[in-house]
Amino acid sequence: MSSVWGNHLKITVFGQSHSEAIGVVIDGFPAGFRVDFEALHTFLARRAPGNAAFATARKEADIPEFVSGLVDGVTCGAPICALIRNTDTRSGDYKNIAQCPRPSHADYPAHVRYDGFQDVRGGGHFSGRLTAPLCIVGALCLQYLQTKNIRIGAHIAAVGGIADTPFDAVNVCDDHFLTDAFPVLSETAKTAMQERIAAARADGDSVGGVIEAAVIGLPVGIGEPPFEGLENRISSLLFGVPAVKGVEFGNGFEAATLTGSQNNDAYCVKNGEIKTVTNRHGGILGGLSTGMPLLCRVAVKPTPSIAKEQQSVNLQTKEPQTLVVNGRHDPCIVPRAVPCVEAVLAVALTDTILGSVIHEA
Amino acid sequence: MSSVWGNHLKITVFGQSHSEAIGVVIDGFPAGFRVDFEALHTFLARRAPGNAAFATARKEADIPEFVSGLVDGVTCGAPICALIRNTDTRSGDYKNIAQCPRPSHADYPAHVRYDGFQDVRGGGHFSGRLTAPLCIVGALCLQYLQTKNIRIGAHIAAVGGIADTPFDAVNVCDDHFLTDAFPVLSETAKTAMQERIAAARADGDSVGGVIEAAVIGLPVGIGEPPFEGLENRISSLLFGVPAVKGVEFGNGFEAATLTGSQNNDAYCVKNGEIKTVTNRHGGILGGLSTGMPLLCRVAVKPTPSIAKEQQSVNLQTKEPQTLVVNGRHDPCIVPRAVPCVEAVLAVALTDTILGSVIHEA
Amino acid sequence: MSSVWGNHLKITVFGQSHSEAIGVVIDGFPAGFRVDFEALHTFLARRAPGNAAFATARKEADIPEFVSGLVDGVTCGAPICALIRNTDTRSGDYKNIAQCPRPSHADYPAHVRYDGFQDVRGGGHFSGRLTAPLCIVGALCLQYLQTKNIRIGAHIAAVGGIADTPFDAVNVCDDHFLTDAFPVLSETAKTAMQERIAAARADGDSVGGVIEAAVIGLPVGIGEPPFEGLENRISSLLFGVPAVKGVEFGNGFEAATLTGSQNNDAYCVKNGEIKTVTNRHGGILGGLSTGMPLLCRVAVKPTPSIAKEQQSVNLQTKEPQTLVVNGRHDPCIVPRAVPCVEAVLAVALTDTILGSVIHEA
Amino acid sequence: MSSVWGNHLKITVFGQSHSEAIGVVIDGFPAGFRVDFEALHTFLARRAPGNAAFATARKEADIPEFVSGLVDGVTCGAPICALIRNTDTRSGDYKNIAQCPRPSHADYPAHVRYDGFQDVRGGGHFSGRLTAPLCIVGALCLQYLQTKNIRIGAHIAAVGGIADTPFDAVNVCDDHFLTDAFPVLSETAKTAMQERIAAARADGDSVGGVIEAAVIGLPVGIGEPPFEGLENRISSLLFGVPAVKGVEFGNGFEAATLTGSQNNDAYCVKNGEIKTVTNRHGGILGGLSTGMPLLCRVAVKPTPSIAKEQQSVNLQTKEPQTLVVNGRHDPCIVPRAVPCVEAVLAVALTDTILGSVIHEA
Repeated sequence: MSSVWGNHLKITVFGQSHSEAIGVVIDGFPAGFRVDFEALHTFLARRAPGNAAFATARKEADIPEFVSGLVDGVTCGAPICALIRNTDTRSGDYKNIAQCPRPSHADYPAHVRYDGFQDVRGGGHFSGRLTAPLCIVGALCLQYLQTKNIRIGAHIAAVGGIADTPFDAVNVCDDHFLTDAFPVLSETAKTAMQERIAAARADGDSVGGVIEAAVIGLPVGIGEPPFEGLENRISSLLFGVPAVKGVEFGNGFEAATLTGSQNNDAYCVKNGEIKTVTNRHGGILGGLSTGMPLLCRVAVKPTPSIAKEQQSVNLQTKEPQTLVVNGRHDPCIVPRAVPCVEAVLAVALTDTILGSVIHEA
Repeated sequence: MSSVWGNHLKITVFGQSHSEAIGVVIDGFPAGFRVDFEALHTFLARRAPGNAAFATARKEADIPEFVSGLVDGVTCGAPICALIRNTDTRSGDYKNIAQCPRPSHADYPAHVRYDGFQDVRGGGHFSGRLTAPLCIVGALCLQYLQTKNIRIGAHIAAVGGIADTPFDAVNVCDDHFLTDAFPVLSETAKTAMQERIAAARADGDSVGGVIEAAVIGLPVGIGEPPFEGLENRISSLLFGVPAVKGVEFGNGFEAATLTGSQNNDAYCVKNGEIKTVTNRHGGILGGLSTGMPLLCRVAVKPTPSIAKEQQSVNLQTKEPQTLVVNGRHDPCIVPRAVPCVEAVLAVALTDTILGSVIHEA
Repeated sequence: MSSVWGNHLKITVFGQSHSEAIGVVIDGFPAGFRVDFEALHTFLARRAPGNAAFATARKEADIPEFVSGLVDGVTCGAPICALIRNTDTRSGDYKNIAQCPRPSHADYPAHVRYDGFQDVRGGGHFSGRLTAPLCIVGALCLQYLQTKNIRIGAHIAAVGGIADTPFDAVNVCDDHFLTDAFPVLSETAKTAMQERIAAARADGDSVGGVIEAAVIGLPVGIGEPPFEGLENRISSLLFGVPAVKGVEFGNGFEAATLTGSQNNDAYCVKNGEIKTVTNRHGGILGGLSTGMPLLCRVAVKPTPSIAKEQQSVNLQTKEPQTLVVNGRHDPCIVPRAVPCVEAVLAVALTDTILGSVIHEA
Repeated sequence: MSSVWGNHLKITVFGQSHSEAIGVVIDGFPAGFRVDFEALHTFLARRAPGNAAFATARKEADIPEFVSGLVDGVTCGAPICALIRNTDTRSGDYKNIAQCPRPSHADYPAHVRYDGFQDVRGGGHFSGRLTAPLCIVGALCLQYLQTKNIRIGAHIAAVGGIADTPFDAVNVCDDHFLTDAFPVLSETAKTAMQERIAAARADGDSVGGVIEAAVIGLPVGIGEPPFEGLENRISSLLFGVPAVKGVEFGNGFEAATLTGSQNNDAYCVKNGEIKTVTNRHGGILGGLSTGMPLLCRVAVKPTPSIAKEQQSVNLQTKEPQTLVVNGRHDPCIVPRAVPCVEAVLAVALTDTILGSVIHEA
């Protein structure tokens, strides 16, 4: 396992789905920052289960306790540790997993890697529940970045093949949009997506989707290329979110179909600042921020836990075995993954910014 | 800049397009390994310029000199340093870049980041030429992995929208295929792609493409999730290759359109080993290898250096300025990027494998 | 702050002297290891306050709660988080510190570094109390190393200038000795030291001392020189223990007074194994273990918190100010620092061993 | 091997005593810094062999070639690579070492660690010659720190038991003193030391010594405790210099003999700045700089290569074997180690300073 991430802001995520607690330690966060707990709880609520028809029925308050790093709600420079107790767990649901890996979960390779000692209850440390600590640190970083006029937003670009309208970096960073539990620009698309999810649930199935995110307000020249540039760092952390299978920046895979003259972004001057006329590059060139909105798309696979019967193998006998995954599962985790993507962007950018001070010789 | 990468195999890439030399230091490579220099040179030749009609006219021998780390061609445990002298450089070509950034290159953010002190000649440290040192270490890692029966191969999946036939993990790892300078499975597609590139060149333009790569022979359970899993590490290094704009594993973005029952890979037993019937997950679950072929797709944008006139801005006066990029440039870097992708996979996997020894308690 | 340490076993220490809790997250500990909690508590008790006349009167159970990483007392591969609640705190004792730094404490530079936002209560994150989490991870590592027949022991070599008899690597690693709260080889010296400490206490003063530690059973060739050799890693972590002012290996500073022919250790063969006749090098050459006992000496300064009146400065007015440090303080922390030194050695060696597997090419 | 060091300024040292070249890559050095090559060469000359009667007869120009990272002598932000070719090597001198390890060298553990593949010629990567690349980066960092009014100096505090007069932080940082190849404050002591070295040489023996260094001009509050504080970082790098066996800060081991009231440094105000009346703490409290001179003492063991016959063991037969080490060796490396200690301090402090910018919330 490697649950530590970051060069300047070092985060350490701990806990399993059914351990006593999950949490995070945040090392390197600037001192003197007053945490807005209400904003923090609002942000965490977007990721929390049980909000709506399209989410799992598991309900937990998920209010973190900060056991270090704060004095009267203000950061003191010492590492911040926040804990969430696991209270509503039903370990019995997962007993049959130990010997029969769920398709497209980490069960089988984890069994081999940890020699059978991994915590199988609820997916253990591989559980999507571990994105809650990630969202705690993400929430703090979002607040920190806002003091520097950097804002991060996202929308559900697609669910099960149903697409939202093209997004706009400014709109998705709007305050109102940021508190939406199902952030879609087109109301028609939103309804269609929710119906698609309801249909999947009714069918004992699940659906995947795509999240599009934007960052506005980044200064020019942030990043440490070639190996710690913005794309390297963001993608490195994004793949720590379960179910993420693809990442692209700017027009991404579409760029592969274009010519240079179609894909290049001409420079211009707007309000005295150098900008590009278009933003196919997604705000990053050579790993450095360009001052244009950072644009990022993330592919989320359908929840592998489905109610349908599936074909697996008994790990001891190596005989075929039919598996029905019990427990409560989201038919679509895309809405709950939206704040996770925002959190990842906030953490990756805060880490970069804390280390990117320009030291003039 | 951050030109050091790796946890167990630490590589440090140095040099600019027109500095005295470029090179790499490789720290942590196992001792006692005899380098196959012929295989190394063959591999580097695939990335080298001047091989064919679709590549730049800049010709350099690019034969690395190993100045440390080897005794009689065998690694001795000390860091390996390999150098390539820059000989065929025409710095004059780039003089107008200093004050007028080339669209979709790193020129502008680098100017801001390094306060005008960056090396503008040939793109400096941002140049695609810096993939040569990456391929040196990649070649060594490929040789090392072969001793463990791990093989890596790739094909050009698309150029300018023209697609190759679907690929097969075993075929692209075939010896014959691995030495092809333009590795495409379908001869028809290959011809069409080369015509597309020739047309772009004739038009003073360029085209992008997609590279699909596979790794076969990986043991089960390799990777250090959640933050140092295989996808995290591979993507983190892939975005160090200039022009890469997107990365996906397994069926990637396509997974976002499917249901769980369509996307899940059922388990089965083949020749006494646990495998999956299908391989939509691309050989990675929860950041760990599953024993199925690792599958990866990489989007490469069209070369931003084109002969067509482009719109830019003078960095001093902030006046609009028309720019014509002189110099020799590839109308399509996708073929030369293929060995770079293979190198990245080899380096990322060697780093992971060197650190992934299972320490039983 | 940088409270994360380790390359392969990554530890993150958190908490302040008077925060809700202190603790540690341990990432990378092998799966399948059954923790011996009784041995853990015995080890922690040696560091805990309130054991004897020579220690502080602050009493806390200091029994850690493991909230993650264990399943039925066995490590599961996920990060281990252990917490100790702070219960017996008297913050009022420290109120006058905020504006008047205690001599030879971190108060003043911390005030500058954290812009006045640091937690001043009990020294905050700088408190010696933070060695409790270090001892938790140390205890686990000691248990892990014992399964590999590696043992670590230490004695109090000197207190306030009173020296113990010369130590022996095997004796200090004896089971009986390892549970002694005041481990001194000579009973006469032990009595004299305790009288020295009692005199200091009576005088409102404190005394420093020297700790000598040994590691036996290390395999030959462990370490990653030149920058991650055994001395580099051990010293890097030792200076994380408050009050440590010097570190030496083997005969250390004494070596500086000798000639090569006096200081060199001749080789011999004992029981078929290559050993050295003498062990002035302290078991490390070129950063690598030699198979001889690893020997290490650590200088511990006298507790800076003393009852005597001291001269300080008011940070706001910059006027001289007389300071009397209230609160309960150890007249000598050397005995409680002994398990801390053992813990540091255990953590540094476990980290090195987990990464030191010899990968033959 | 782990030849990479640094968090913000990452250095990678490569080369063996008799490889084609030795060198260093410096990643993260600020852009826009004009290198003073004359000062660089003067600094390197102090470490270079062949300067005087007390040094080895091996003579090499040791003028580094910078192959990357500079444009017209000014840093450009890209990694700086500097090379020194090995020209004057006599590999034949070391042939008998391969099977018969030299006492108190790394030969034996390296043989085990690298399975016999290590480069035995001249000690390979363990050679003191590898301090030349360290001094290159040290020289650049010294120049960088001088622009911030931070100065570093050192003197030979003792050789073979002969002590210099007590040192003064300001004196040893004097320009004149900094270019002295044998920096001793007392002329009497200097003569006695040189006679001691001459006697050792005549006797086919060697002597060790102690180096005392100081840093003046450091701002208050630099360092990242508890694990990346100034002592942690400096010691971690110091033990990368061959022959270093002990490190202490401030009064170090002497503090262990004092009481708190004797050892504590009272605060005062001088010229409007908060200082301490005495400086027993050596400018570091809690891992943070206090604004007082940083004081550091380093124990250097006698050169293990001596002309006297020594007892060793044949690694193949495990039979006793008498060894006479041929080749040219320093009877005392302490004078040449002085610039190495200064280099280490400069590198460690530059790395810390580049990462220590106070990010106000």
